[in-house]
Amino acid sequence: MGASPVELRRLIRTGAYTAPTSGLCPGYAQANLIVLPKEQAYDFLLFAQRNPKPCPLLEVTETGARQTSICATDCDIATDFPRYRIYRYGELVDETTDVSELWRDDFVSFVIGCSFSFESELVEAGIEMRHNTMGRNVSMYLTNVACRPAGSMSGNMVMSMRPIPYDQVVRATQISGAIPQVHGAPLHIGDPSAIGIDDVSKPDFGDPVDIREGEVPVFWACGVTPQSVVMNSKPPLAITHAPGCMLVTDTKNIDLKG
Amino acid sequence: MGASPVELRRLIRTGAYTAPTSGLCPGYAQANLIVLPKEQAYDFLLFAQRNPKPCPLLEVTETGARQTSICATDCDIATDFPRYRIYRYGELVDETTDVSELWRDDFVSFVIGCSFSFESELVEAGIEMRHNTMGRNVSMYLTNVACRPAGSMSGNMVMSMRPIPYDQVVRATQISGAIPQVHGAPLHIGDPSAIGIDDVSKPDFGDPVDIREGEVPVFWACGVTPQSVVMNSKPPLAITHAPGCMLVTDTKNIDLKG
Repeated sequence: MGASPVELRRLIRTGAYTAPTSGLCPGYAQANLIVLPKEQAYDFLLFAQRNPKPCPLLEVTETGARQTSICATDCDIATDFPRYRIYRYGELVDETTDVSELWRDDFVSFVIGCSFSFESELVEAGIEMRHNTMGRNVSMYLTNVACRPAGSMSGNMVMSMRPIPYDQVVRATQISGAIPQVHGAPLHIGDPSAIGIDDVSKPDFGDPVDIREGEVPVFWACGVTPQSVVMNSKPPLAITHAPGCMLVTDTKNIDLKG
Repeated sequence: MGASPVELRRLIRTGAYTAPTSGLCPGYAQANLIVLPKEQAYDFLLFAQRNPKPCPLLEVTETGARQTSICATDCDIATDFPRYRIYRYGELVDETTDVSELWRDDFVSFVIGCSFSFESELVEAGIEMRHNTMGRNVSMYLTNVACRPAGSMSGNMVMSMRPIPYDQVVRATQISGAIPQVHGAPLHIGDPSAIGIDDVSKPDFGDPVDIREGEVPVFWACGVTPQSVVMNSKPPLAITHAPGCMLVTDTKNIDLKG
């Protein structure tokens, strides 16, 4: 797909594209979302400050604003993600492609870096992204790794997994590590049970992918972590993206390296 | 001085050391401070998120807490900086060595990385820190570089300056750039007037230092920036460290590189 980020956002805004965004607009940062009422915003902002690996903030909007002003222009947070999830008191109550109708003037949006951003650099380095070649969403797992709590917000970390051949693991670590704002270096390499994952073939979010002989599962902090926090902390209302269905921003990966 | 950070903090707590901390406990991160009532804390936290070069947060305390829990143990924020400044409605009204008497249970403390942290690595690389060899405080300047505003908080950036020989400028940039949490790479190299400094021999904070033939002034973002923000934004009350008189934390520079 040769669309620019703004063209893709406009397409998504019409409702014509509702699928995962991995592989789209290579070189541009993709982003996770959590929207909370102002009453919970301080606690979540502090949570993100204390947990920069899963929650690297690309932008926090002005209260009530639906537009981003830093990571993208011509961008409507309520329509430009392919899919959203609505949580009430920690329960997932709906999944939808547009949250305009729910918008309130006390909403604060947290736009969070996504590991899809560095995938194009891994591919350029000759590292296969198995979920892309299989035409699937990336595998994501709720781990037993606790985040640092902040006020009313606490929960365990979600991590994404990519199977990497042993001889490419160090390179994948270095390439991703150069961009901390989109989760950076992996948090775990190898045995899934060490981080509380019993069966790597059954991800908690996204799709399973094949791990072949000579490959090791490599785990990165994931921007679905706020959804784990919402499920655990049960704020009255939270809106998030649906896992894998990200905002494609105007920010180039290279601009996150400075 | 061979004291450990905790020994130095205990000494400072007694009031026996009230001077700048540059050069003390090499290898350990030093930190700036701004304390604000909870009512202003969201705006400042967002300001720091939007301005990570001058305001890299090492820790934000629980509301009301005088103890740090991340960057140091056995650490009292109200006593363990050598000197503090008290601002009311943006006016500097007092400078003192202890703010215990002023402490309130709605205070939030922002502990911010400091460029003194990477000085020991620059010295190890053979780069002279002129302010240390001259026995002075580092030179700091109020520049014309605007920070990104956040709610009630806005102001221009303060930068520290070190004269560096031309043939060491690149090395100094790379070494400091490896630790973004203590301001990272310089923001400006060369002509002071390009960032609004008319006379480099008259710093707005700290002391002047000699710039010799064959040396270039190199400017780093500075954690005194919150004081510029306080003077501009005029919150009812703010407590900061006195420029150059930092908290010496238990956090090693190397732990900020991961």
